[in-house]
Amino acid sequence: MSKEITSRKEDYSQWYNDLVIKGGLADYSAVRGCMVIKPFGFALWEKMRDTLDQMFKDTGHENAYFPLFIPKSFLSREAAHVEGFAKECAVVTHYRLKNDPDGGGIIVDPEAKLEEELIVRPTSETIIWNTYKTWIQSYRDLPLLINQWANVVRWEMRTRLFLRTTEFLWQEGHTAHATSDEAIAEARLMLDIYTDFVENYMALPVIRGVKTASERFAGAIDTYCIEALMQDGKALQAGTSHFLGQNFAKAFDVKFSDRQNKLDYVWATSWGVSTRLVGALVMSHGDDDGLILPPRIAPIQVVIIPIYKGDERKDLLDKKGKELAAELKKSGIRVKFDNNDNNRPGWKFAEYEKKGVPLRIALGLRDLDNNTVEIARRDTKEKTSFPEGGIVLRIEKLLLEIQDTMFRKSMQYRDEHITKADSWKEFLNLLDEKGGFILAHWDGTAETEEAIKEKSKATIRCIPFNNPSEEGFCIYSGKPSAERVLFARAY
Amino acid sequence: MSKEITSRKEDYSQWYNDLVIKGGLADYSAVRGCMVIKPFGFALWEKMRDTLDQMFKDTGHENAYFPLFIPKSFLSREAAHVEGFAKECAVVTHYRLKNDPDGGGIIVDPEAKLEEELIVRPTSETIIWNTYKTWIQSYRDLPLLINQWANVVRWEMRTRLFLRTTEFLWQEGHTAHATSDEAIAEARLMLDIYTDFVENYMALPVIRGVKTASERFAGAIDTYCIEALMQDGKALQAGTSHFLGQNFAKAFDVKFSDRQNKLDYVWATSWGVSTRLVGALVMSHGDDDGLILPPRIAPIQVVIIPIYKGDERKDLLDKKGKELAAELKKSGIRVKFDNNDNNRPGWKFAEYEKKGVPLRIALGLRDLDNNTVEIARRDTKEKTSFPEGGIVLRIEKLLLEIQDTMFRKSMQYRDEHITKADSWKEFLNLLDEKGGFILAHWDGTAETEEAIKEKSKATIRCIPFNNPSEEGFCIYSGKPSAERVLFARAY
Repeated sequence: MSKEITSRKEDYSQWYNDLVIKGGLADYSAVRGCMVIKPFGFALWEKMRDTLDQMFKDTGHENAYFPLFIPKSFLSREAAHVEGFAKECAVVTHYRLKNDPDGGGIIVDPEAKLEEELIVRPTSETIIWNTYKTWIQSYRDLPLLINQWANVVRWEMRTRLFLRTTEFLWQEGHTAHATSDEAIAEARLMLDIYTDFVENYMALPVIRGVKTASERFAGAIDTYCIEALMQDGKALQAGTSHFLGQNFAKAFDVKFSDRQNKLDYVWATSWGVSTRLVGALVMSHGDDDGLILPPRIAPIQVVIIPIYKGDERKDLLDKKGKELAAELKKSGIRVKFDNNDNNRPGWKFAEYEKKGVPLRIALGLRDLDNNTVEIARRDTKEKTSFPEGGIVLRIEKLLLEIQDTMFRKSMQYRDEHITKADSWKEFLNLLDEKGGFILAHWDGTAETEEAIKEKSKATIRCIPFNNPSEEGFCIYSGKPSAERVLFARAY
Repeated sequence: MSKEITSRKEDYSQWYNDLVIKGGLADYSAVRGCMVIKPFGFALWEKMRDTLDQMFKDTGHENAYFPLFIPKSFLSREAAHVEGFAKECAVVTHYRLKNDPDGGGIIVDPEAKLEEELIVRPTSETIIWNTYKTWIQSYRDLPLLINQWANVVRWEMRTRLFLRTTEFLWQEGHTAHATSDEAIAEARLMLDIYTDFVENYMALPVIRGVKTASERFAGAIDTYCIEALMQDGKALQAGTSHFLGQNFAKAFDVKFSDRQNKLDYVWATSWGVSTRLVGALVMSHGDDDGLILPPRIAPIQVVIIPIYKGDERKDLLDKKGKELAAELKKSGIRVKFDNNDNNRPGWKFAEYEKKGVPLRIALGLRDLDNNTVEIARRDTKEKTSFPEGGIVLRIEKLLLEIQDTMFRKSMQYRDEHITKADSWKEFLNLLDEKGGFILAHWDGTAETEEAIKEKSKATIRCIPFNNPSEEGFCIYSGKPSAERVLFARAY
């Protein structure tokens, strides 16, 4: 076990930070709450981003780019939106620095004060809908299916690398439609895409559902979400998709003329996932030796490490390693041959274990003699010696198997952690002792939801899609309820 | 000719804006100096970005991401840097808004004032070198070859879409090396990559050289650049690569121990290109009908437009168009089959002409009968009917030919616009009447350079690499000079 990494049992929160920092994903920065995404972490994000981007494009979406800054007054246009977003944000008030005439160094030039302050975007609905006003006139301009990859800023008081940072990277889709039905279908389609991505690429099962009114996006009619479960039994919202109705169209006066030449407000959706998903990946799959990355999005899928004994047949090992790497690369496998002399094999083993590389090939002298290859799986730690013949196919199969094993393992853990609670006491006990998702009756009021949250720190994660009807009584108020909803403590 | 587009002759500046806006590349935004990059413009930028990104990765660079914000004090650490960058920038002073207790709507919360103001990055040397301090200890950590794709903000008073905007997108490479020679070689390598990209993908010839001391990047020992010529005879700096010496290492105290365990400051480079390149592309290749995009980076290389006569054999035309599109796509050609019923063929012709799509295929009933395909080149406007057999190969060849023709045309124009001037009068006449690059003697002083700039609006674009020695006399001061340097009025 790596001594550098705190065990989950000892300190789960420190374990997470160790994985992120020592796994080479990210680092703290000099700016409070902002992180530096390190090359290995960024390569992982690029894999995730490019996969999602292709999914968006395959469903007819185009990328665009809107300004970083939002005029302060824009935030106020949509009543619910301003309540949700006008609070903790970075405000640009000036546009110039100057030398202090009193010798105090560089100061903000008081004469360069903006007439209207600019907000660094916490989300872009307002600036985008202000733009759509000029892009949309007729039904011919609809649907408008646009996405942007961008940085956003929300001034968070308590931050965690990837999970909650002041600046983060994300994509935000903003679409415009001629009918309510079409917009709802779009919001659901994007939730399907997120589900596909998180389950089939990140190997992380999710529960899909709709948020309660209190947990909705500020300005939305409905917020759909996917909820995943972390190893400490806490939930994490992995993606959201919002049906915005005509709220933003009304706020920014975006109308279109339909085929009958009748004017109506446009229907909208927005949807997003962020670098937070990297945090989910770390928390859900990692172990006490480091990250475990699902093969489909791992920046390095296979690492080959030569085991030199002095200089004996070093050239041969190098040659063999390079040949094997080239062969794997030709088959589209992301492989690294690490023959760097500065580090010893033992150090390298630990390093790639920390980085979660799915397969490790150790290439030693005995392998040269026997025409074998020793492969170690990161997820199960199994080590097996295989004959060299057909090794590419073997590795391709192993990568698929790891992807599948990781998903099934997470699924099993998740399924074992969905529990029904029928009383307040049971509910609290479950939260404290077992964690995970809890299905419980709720009376449907925001007051009860708030009281439960305050007393238990658990929130309603969602009302699952296709939720079965079931008569019962609210665990908190005792009032009648027609269905159970999904509770959890959450990140 | 498109009536929507102002001709170059009538108003060059308006022509440029018309191409950008009506070609679907970008739009003004509600935020002064910031633009919206529209889907077609962003698809173009993506092609450019992805091509460059692959070039960077092929030469061993990795992507990372650093914070948007820079503490104000960081800018002051490197003396020359602060002079260059601390002037016009967006300053974040507060982190919260609130409801005005006096009913004035949303206001900046005076209690949420930052202790130290944050600057929205105008460039990231300072925050990055502050991070490198913790990443670099030994020669084993070098070279560090990192790039980031990011948005940056420089508060410009006079803005032009793409060419000069308050916020723009760019990449900035920041590398660290053990020796001065290695850093210089890196800075030159990156200039080679920029040259390769701009010449062979953007079809735009450049002159490579080094900037004078006055035109150097703030904090650099040497700035290398590539300079291109626009159709109005003005130059445009298309990319820069800086050898930073040990300036930033000293400012942020970044030392490494070499193989002999001796401590020394690290050597640095930085290099960048931006969305400004999109502006260069528009200005250098466009004509009075719209954009002309080089095939290698055109988001759509071929558009297929069916010419329906009522509903006669509409199905057949659709089928043929889809088949042809599929066939081209299979060969990796970026093709669009536009059978949208809402617009007439004539409108589509003009639309894709404006968007600069290199090849247009008009598919009519006569083509169905004769098994022919009519192809129009955007660059030369030539229309030719080809037999259907072997059409993919024909199109591949045409795309290569357009790429080549566009480069040679630009090269010819550029070469015809490099002129020698031997007197101040000749220099001014050339600037006013012919424009372009002017090779002239200069006495090597910043004072003369400044005076020339002030009186003629021309600047020294660079001292070209491999510049021939030539004895002469400064066109302005009459003092002796050992070589000619490259002047131009510039964007």
